[in-house]
Amino acid sequence: MGRWEPNARERLAAAALQLYSEQGYERTTVAQIARQAGLTERTFFRHYADKREVLFAGSPLQELFVTAVATAPPSAPLVDVLGAGLDAASEMFAGRHEHALLRQAVVAAHPELQERELIKLASLASALADALRDRGVPEPTATLAAETGVAVFKVGFERWITAAEETDMAPLMHDLLHELGKMTARG
Amino acid sequence: MGRWEPNARERLAAAALQLYSEQGYERTTVAQIARQAGLTERTFFRHYADKREVLFAGSPLQELFVTAVATAPPSAPLVDVLGAGLDAASEMFAGRHEHALLRQAVVAAHPELQERELIKLASLASALADALRDRGVPEPTATLAAETGVAVFKVGFERWITAAEETDMAPLMHDLLHELGKMTARG
Repeated sequence: MGRWEPNARERLAAAALQLYSEQGYERTTVAQIARQAGLTERTFFRHYADKREVLFAGSPLQELFVTAVATAPPSAPLVDVLGAGLDAASEMFAGRHEHALLRQAVVAAHPELQERELIKLASLASALADALRDRGVPEPTATLAAETGVAVFKVGFERWITAAEETDMAPLMHDLLHELGKMTARG
Repeated sequence: MGRWEPNARERLAAAALQLYSEQGYERTTVAQIARQAGLTERTFFRHYADKREVLFAGSPLQELFVTAVATAPPSAPLVDVLGAGLDAASEMFAGRHEHALLRQAVVAAHPELQERELIKLASLASALADALRDRGVPEPTATLAAETGVAVFKVGFERWITAAEETDMAPLMHDLLHELGKMTARG
């Protein structure tokens, strides 16, 4: 096997998730992950700081969500700006239902991984609020919209992942935005 | 001083917050907190597991918020049910602006305390969703409403705490609910 390993990063992530699911997160070592992926430990550490990072590092979720919000048409109503961000976030999960399900099971079983997940979502909300302020959205609307966008994403993702089969995530997100409009509308 | 110490819990909390603010959270010991409160370390540990818990333990926020949601009139629209919960949460902060400001500064300066705060908010959202399901609210509306309620609380609390002077928190929360209605309304 040559020194250049095609898709090393993805192979390591897939191997790690398989081992975490089969034998448990605690019992899995970096050496095992590397072996399972047909790679060396050194290669592992070129891509990830530790075995926890395999579950979190390099997710483009925040970048995709924020970029879509930042680049939505200037005239778009705020709800559509959020919708554009949720669409971009949804798209990255296409074809990844099984992967997401395995990952979710590992995270849900470990409080320290759940904490890390909460921190990533808080960071997403903060980045979204920045992007909305850059669009000229005043406070507190920017922060409220950002927190709302993350709330919708959390609920929509949960629905998507608990469905028996993979469905399009984006329509779930739009249903929730619509639901939110009904919920908060004044008679 | 007798063995029964009136308001020991509150005195310890006030002393801890004062020391955390003056000399830093890390540099403050349980012994110092007890001395500052005119109490013993043993009394401290009867009330709190450790110095972190002083900042988190015993806040009635979740209980008040959830109880108000659970006991809102059965016919109340969902937005008013959330409003009732936010009112109850707001009420507990009346007269506590300075305390809340000091606490917030300590928490904001320490990632592990921020994590703990995020976990408490996630637990609040989960308890609110339970209470809403008990009211007969179907999913995903219950979870969406719960996450939204927490999002509004976070933003409203942030506005309340950053104001130069203490104002009523409840009107800020209702403004945000109204803002959310406008934001998600379909023209």
